[in-house]
Amino acid sequence: MLRFYFLKAMEKEDPEHVKFMKMAIALSIKNVQKNIGGPFGAVVVRNGKVIARSANKVATTNDPTAHAEILAIRFASKKIGNFDLSDCVIYTSCEPCPMCLGAIYWSRISKIYYANTKHDAAEIGFDDKFIYDELDLPVEKRKLPVVQLLRDEAIQSFKQWQKSDLRIEY
Amino acid sequence: MLRFYFLKAMEKEDPEHVKFMKMAIALSIKNVQKNIGGPFGAVVVRNGKVIARSANKVATTNDPTAHAEILAIRFASKKIGNFDLSDCVIYTSCEPCPMCLGAIYWSRISKIYYANTKHDAAEIGFDDKFIYDELDLPVEKRKLPVVQLLRDEAIQSFKQWQKSDLRIEY
Repeated sequence: MLRFYFLKAMEKEDPEHVKFMKMAIALSIKNVQKNIGGPFGAVVVRNGKVIARSANKVATTNDPTAHAEILAIRFASKKIGNFDLSDCVIYTSCEPCPMCLGAIYWSRISKIYYANTKHDAAEIGFDDKFIYDELDLPVEKRKLPVVQLLRDEAIQSFKQWQKSDLRIEY
Repeated sequence: MLRFYFLKAMEKEDPEHVKFMKMAIALSIKNVQKNIGGPFGAVVVRNGKVIARSANKVATTNDPTAHAEILAIRFASKKIGNFDLSDCVIYTSCEPCPMCLGAIYWSRISKIYYANTKHDAAEIGFDDKFIYDELDLPVEKRKLPVVQLLRDEAIQSFKQWQKSDLRIEY
């Protein structure tokens, strides 16, 4: 156990991790100073090299999904021509929100390095914690109403997917 | 309570909801038949009119974030020139994964209609349920390793954000 904490402490001071995290933080600071978007930056690294980076661009692109991590993942996938980023890691200036965490799982990124926490984000008015809290509730207790309909009809697409020889699994 | 269930049952049979959900289902089926992507479709509706629609395009665009709901939200926001979709509802052929659910919260969409469940999706090999399970675990028990570093440095961007008069809140 002691060895585990020692290795973890070593990792936090590893110059390479510090370098990439400083890049993500610099993106977050520049984004505020230039009034582009929220104080968030992310960098995707593959084999020790930065392959994509972005800051948050929600307000300037009118895209609610344009968080730093989502954009960095989209740029990284485009760059390597693959939706599978399992040989990549991500450095993000803030603990990912549920949307970005979901995107990280779908991309199969193998490790997350983050700096600010979701509680820090909540303190300056971002909804990350609210969304985490909502996801923890059973659907019927959430603030966002959800209604199911036509499942018998929709399941046909899943049946066709299973039968298709052409499908690309992801 | 009885009135609640009665209204909910009525809503499920409302021709308008049925019409929009059938559109989302048709997108999901066409996507499999044309071998474009996974069996998922979504439609964003505002004041009774479809303003955006999409199927899943992960495999064909090499973008792990290109789920039907994410794309429909991005198109809808672009169309109305606003990242706030609080006057919109979404019809999706499958219960949203955590990434898409997060995007729906960020977009402030006011209601979700869905057909297939996350369990249906898990049965045909999609990871939605795995990601939901991961999010339910404390960070240190998740399969995806997460390391925090340089928080003292990163918090500066949050402090600058709070001081900025130019910030656009979202």
